[in-house]
Amino acid sequence: MSPPPIDGRARVVIEGVTPEVDAGRFAAKRTIGDTVIVEADIFTDGHERAAAAILVRHESETEPATIAMTPLVNDRWRGSFVVSRGGGYWFTLLGWRDDFGTWAADLEKRRAAGPVADVDLAIGAALVAAAAARAAGDDARRLRRFSAALAEGGSAATAVAGDPELAALVAAHPDLEHATRYDRELPIFVDRERARFGAWYEMFPRSCASEAGRHATFRDAAARLAYVASMGFDVVYLPPIHPIGHTHRKGKNNALVAEPGEPGSPWAIGGIEGGHESVHPELGTLGDFDAFVAEATGQGLDVALDIAYQCSPDHPYVALHPEWFRRRPDGTIQYAENPPKKYQDIYPFDFDTEAWASLWQELLDIVLFWMDHGVRIFRVDNPHTKPFALWEWLIAEARKKDPGVIFLSEAFTRPKVMYRLAKLGFTQSYTYFTWRRTAPELRAYFTELTAPPVLDFFRPNLWPNTPDILTDVLQEGGPPAFAIRYLLASTLGASYGIYGPAFELGERVPREPGSEEYRDSEKYEIRHWDLDRPDSLRSLITRTNAARHAHAALQRDDTLTFHDTDNPRLLCYSKTSASASDVVLVVVSLDPVWKQGGWVDLDLAALGVTPDTAFEVHDLLSGARYPWHGRRNYVELDPHRLPAHLFEVRRIT
Amino acid sequence: MSPPPIDGRARVVIEGVTPEVDAGRFAAKRTIGDTVIVEADIFTDGHERAAAAILVRHESETEPATIAMTPLVNDRWRGSFVVSRGGGYWFTLLGWRDDFGTWAADLEKRRAAGPVADVDLAIGAALVAAAAARAAGDDARRLRRFSAALAEGGSAATAVAGDPELAALVAAHPDLEHATRYDRELPIFVDRERARFGAWYEMFPRSCASEAGRHATFRDAAARLAYVASMGFDVVYLPPIHPIGHTHRKGKNNALVAEPGEPGSPWAIGGIEGGHESVHPELGTLGDFDAFVAEATGQGLDVALDIAYQCSPDHPYVALHPEWFRRRPDGTIQYAENPPKKYQDIYPFDFDTEAWASLWQELLDIVLFWMDHGVRIFRVDNPHTKPFALWEWLIAEARKKDPGVIFLSEAFTRPKVMYRLAKLGFTQSYTYFTWRRTAPELRAYFTELTAPPVLDFFRPNLWPNTPDILTDVLQEGGPPAFAIRYLLASTLGASYGIYGPAFELGERVPREPGSEEYRDSEKYEIRHWDLDRPDSLRSLITRTNAARHAHAALQRDDTLTFHDTDNPRLLCYSKTSASASDVVLVVVSLDPVWKQGGWVDLDLAALGVTPDTAFEVHDLLSGARYPWHGRRNYVELDPHRLPAHLFEVRRIT
Repeated sequence: MSPPPIDGRARVVIEGVTPEVDAGRFAAKRTIGDTVIVEADIFTDGHERAAAAILVRHESETEPATIAMTPLVNDRWRGSFVVSRGGGYWFTLLGWRDDFGTWAADLEKRRAAGPVADVDLAIGAALVAAAAARAAGDDARRLRRFSAALAEGGSAATAVAGDPELAALVAAHPDLEHATRYDRELPIFVDRERARFGAWYEMFPRSCASEAGRHATFRDAAARLAYVASMGFDVVYLPPIHPIGHTHRKGKNNALVAEPGEPGSPWAIGGIEGGHESVHPELGTLGDFDAFVAEATGQGLDVALDIAYQCSPDHPYVALHPEWFRRRPDGTIQYAENPPKKYQDIYPFDFDTEAWASLWQELLDIVLFWMDHGVRIFRVDNPHTKPFALWEWLIAEARKKDPGVIFLSEAFTRPKVMYRLAKLGFTQSYTYFTWRRTAPELRAYFTELTAPPVLDFFRPNLWPNTPDILTDVLQEGGPPAFAIRYLLASTLGASYGIYGPAFELGERVPREPGSEEYRDSEKYEIRHWDLDRPDSLRSLITRTNAARHAHAALQRDDTLTFHDTDNPRLLCYSKTSASASDVVLVVVSLDPVWKQGGWVDLDLAALGVTPDTAFEVHDLLSGARYPWHGRRNYVELDPHRLPAHLFEVRRIT
Repeated sequence: MSPPPIDGRARVVIEGVTPEVDAGRFAAKRTIGDTVIVEADIFTDGHERAAAAILVRHESETEPATIAMTPLVNDRWRGSFVVSRGGGYWFTLLGWRDDFGTWAADLEKRRAAGPVADVDLAIGAALVAAAAARAAGDDARRLRRFSAALAEGGSAATAVAGDPELAALVAAHPDLEHATRYDRELPIFVDRERARFGAWYEMFPRSCASEAGRHATFRDAAARLAYVASMGFDVVYLPPIHPIGHTHRKGKNNALVAEPGEPGSPWAIGGIEGGHESVHPELGTLGDFDAFVAEATGQGLDVALDIAYQCSPDHPYVALHPEWFRRRPDGTIQYAENPPKKYQDIYPFDFDTEAWASLWQELLDIVLFWMDHGVRIFRVDNPHTKPFALWEWLIAEARKKDPGVIFLSEAFTRPKVMYRLAKLGFTQSYTYFTWRRTAPELRAYFTELTAPPVLDFFRPNLWPNTPDILTDVLQEGGPPAFAIRYLLASTLGASYGIYGPAFELGERVPREPGSEEYRDSEKYEIRHWDLDRPDSLRSLITRTNAARHAHAALQRDDTLTFHDTDNPRLLCYSKTSASASDVVLVVVSLDPVWKQGGWVDLDLAALGVTPDTAFEVHDLLSGARYPWHGRRNYVELDPHRLPAHLFEVRRIT
């Protein structure tokens, strides 16, 4: 026979806590300034009342703050706190039986039924005296006076029982002797705002020369930043900037053998000039890179670097750390393969090596090195081909140096793998957005992403194109399709990015029919772009990014709401700011060819509009204003003019 | 800086495991003979293959059995095992990287693309040699031969690589050095079959006399068992059989003062003749009770006793254990209250007492005492007014004596409280069925109860009436309503019960208009029933219970599926046996007054019927047979004849 538990008098149950990711195994993600809303099912046996509080502390603190929770309905309780600092928070819950509250509520029922017996008032007097014993100073004195008044009995005492001052005093000195503490400490990781909201611009620095035919330098790239900033971007992201290998170097259009003088792929990292902690000599020096970062910072841009943990055969690691690579039975080093495809220009690390710990340390050191050079954002190439445990450890270590460091997971792979990477620490993730075209596809996918549990750990970053992905939608749809995909990305996603100037200039020729690769891809050659072409999307991008900066509603994903339309080519959705004071409504036509019109059927509550009031929608792209009324309103969109409305909703009060 | 984890080479992730109740805090419920299906998301980084197994053991075993899992789609894996013994099981999962499987699949792709290089075969030879080193005896010899054959290279070796015998041999000796073990051991509690399936009959033994006006004895109650068994019931449940207090004894219809000679409420437990371990002298002796249990067992009936942890003022505990009761400031013992209602005939235990541990022990001893007298089922009165922790401990202790002991929770309270009691050990629970009348209400509620997570921990037991609950549906609907509610309870629920003979005799007069209490309730007086009345539902009950015994489909709730109808007064649902070989389809008219007809729109897949085949439905109540075809079929039900079809579905092959 087992003895009963330590103390059987803990009567309160706490369960169903949110936010809680995988039973507390992983942190829920929030950003600085967020109000974290905590809910739980909290109850006790019998008809007794419960009381509850959140205990929360920043990781740098030892003593938690206590925040009272209040009951909603059906035994659900809620409390909230603001996370004002970056880094980790921990919270748990405390629940206890509110004997005074139970007594007071019962007494009110007794009072309603007839005169109250003195013995019932005496029970309350004892509860208040016990609270007085837990209090000190003035509170104790006041509680003792209340206790004495109750003990006197009669109608005067009955009136005292309902005194709000008495209730507040007792609540301030609760009896926690048999309180229940939730059995898990739940983590929350708080990022800086850029984790939640940002427009990214990817560019190849070597293609930034002002004249064609020259390998550009960091100085050229720095000069290009004014252009990027003028469009309102927040992040400039550079593919790898390291020395490029010569052995098995790929030529134009991924040719197996490069011609002399061809620059090779930046992802074939490492040569005699150095590896992951060096810069490609043709781009300049580390000092030039530092100057680039300084210029970007001055323009209000974060710099994001590419982290690709792989080596060209010429990488210094190959000679210095042969233990980090796998040898085949014939003595050669195992190159990258996805049978039957072979990538002889890339050596993957052997994470099964006995020397895995020193390898991990080196990989972390690479991140710390670039953080020392002012980089606070890393776009991680193919994280799903490296151990999950590596990322969990490495990201946590990097955050010790700077809790504001951001990691974007470039894992275009199976959904559970993508979600796992997000859970274990990646700040943001690439998504399937690129391949979701129809309204039902987009609606289903973004509903999944913006609802718990996914909402708590996965932050989407939407890209209409990347150097690896030129979708058939863009190839075939031309400029209207570029505008459609751009507007979807930048308004469905608080975080989005484009690979430019290919994107704004409408580059859309595939390497061969059916391919998602670009012809004459910048991955294998230097390109020169005419930024001032009249058909550039620059103006649309600038207007949209301006709207994103002006409207808090476009800076978060958790308020996304879809609205029905009667035309399946029209997708309609809204977002609000956290306080719901800012409301943006988007209608996008998914048809790049024909004009589309139809009725939208609005969820007025989501817009903060009451059914019988008129409201105005103001198009932030075209400047047009329309008076609307009620649920059903008509829209018409011509893809050759502007395929979307980006409305600010103005309630007329 | 934190050191990396113990070993970074564990590459497999295991998450999303089912069944798992509250992250393993509580056991999932199953019954003996069930096949437990375990699923999980299991994957590794890269394109490598994973392999996985369930490790499962009965609580009496120290070494787990290993059961291979197989992949479904989208990184979901499944495995299963049969639970053949009552009591607790524990399982967890093991996942590892299947390097041989990855190699063999890659080799097949290489082979399809052209001749295979010997170096690739040599890699496989090394993997097989490693498996040989983990094996012994004949397996090791055969693996060494395979390794040598691969090492020879060429097309012969390529053919060997795909040999299924080789794959099976390597799989039998996996490399578990860096396997991932799921970080929780998950409990399953396996009950005997009665926990999943049974028809209960509640009766007051003191009303079992063959003639009116006499307090019946256990001998009379034993004589009544043949009647109960003849209707096909599985459990006979008795309200408390203990001595009844005299102080503040309630009279007929809950009168505040009993007249001399009135028997009082059996729930006012305890008198000078004894308490919870004694029997009421007017019912007989403990020996008579033992004889009653023996007679029930002989009739194939389990005996269920009422556990009501409360005392009349005359209970021996009051004098012997004053420390188990709370005293008010005036020195009197606190009686039961739900302000402004007072129950002066009942003293609740004070679970906040310092002596709570001795009280708990005594309450457990009561259960163990009756288990020693052959009782294996307890219906627990108002468990939600006692500590949750008490039940978790007490039920676990009782199961150590007999893992087949069953506890039914009589907690008609808030949903989360009811679910919590189920999670912490109650075998079955009363439900809101009694107050769910319309088709949408019934469909929503039973969909919730029969889907995870509720399905895994909450087993409903459906009662159309109890001594405390005579619903307005029965009061107003009369005999057809009794038949409707009976057929719903007995076919929606694998476990159901009626309070008889009040139910089968259609007793339906409330104490006063608007009350759910019976007039002249047996709770306060002895009744005499004419069991042979021609309007008794006995025949319907007998036929229904016979169908329940003959059809495995009616013996479980987890296969419940609702089907649409075009008449909202018609509710249609089906159940199948675990193997789906037995299929029962029910159509119930919820209208006790008018004939109702309409079309049912069947989910044919749930019935195991292909769209284009005819099938026959055979009414197990009326004996009628109908040839049906396709999704849509017509039904018509007259409440004054029979308000339901209880069809066996016979596929015509």
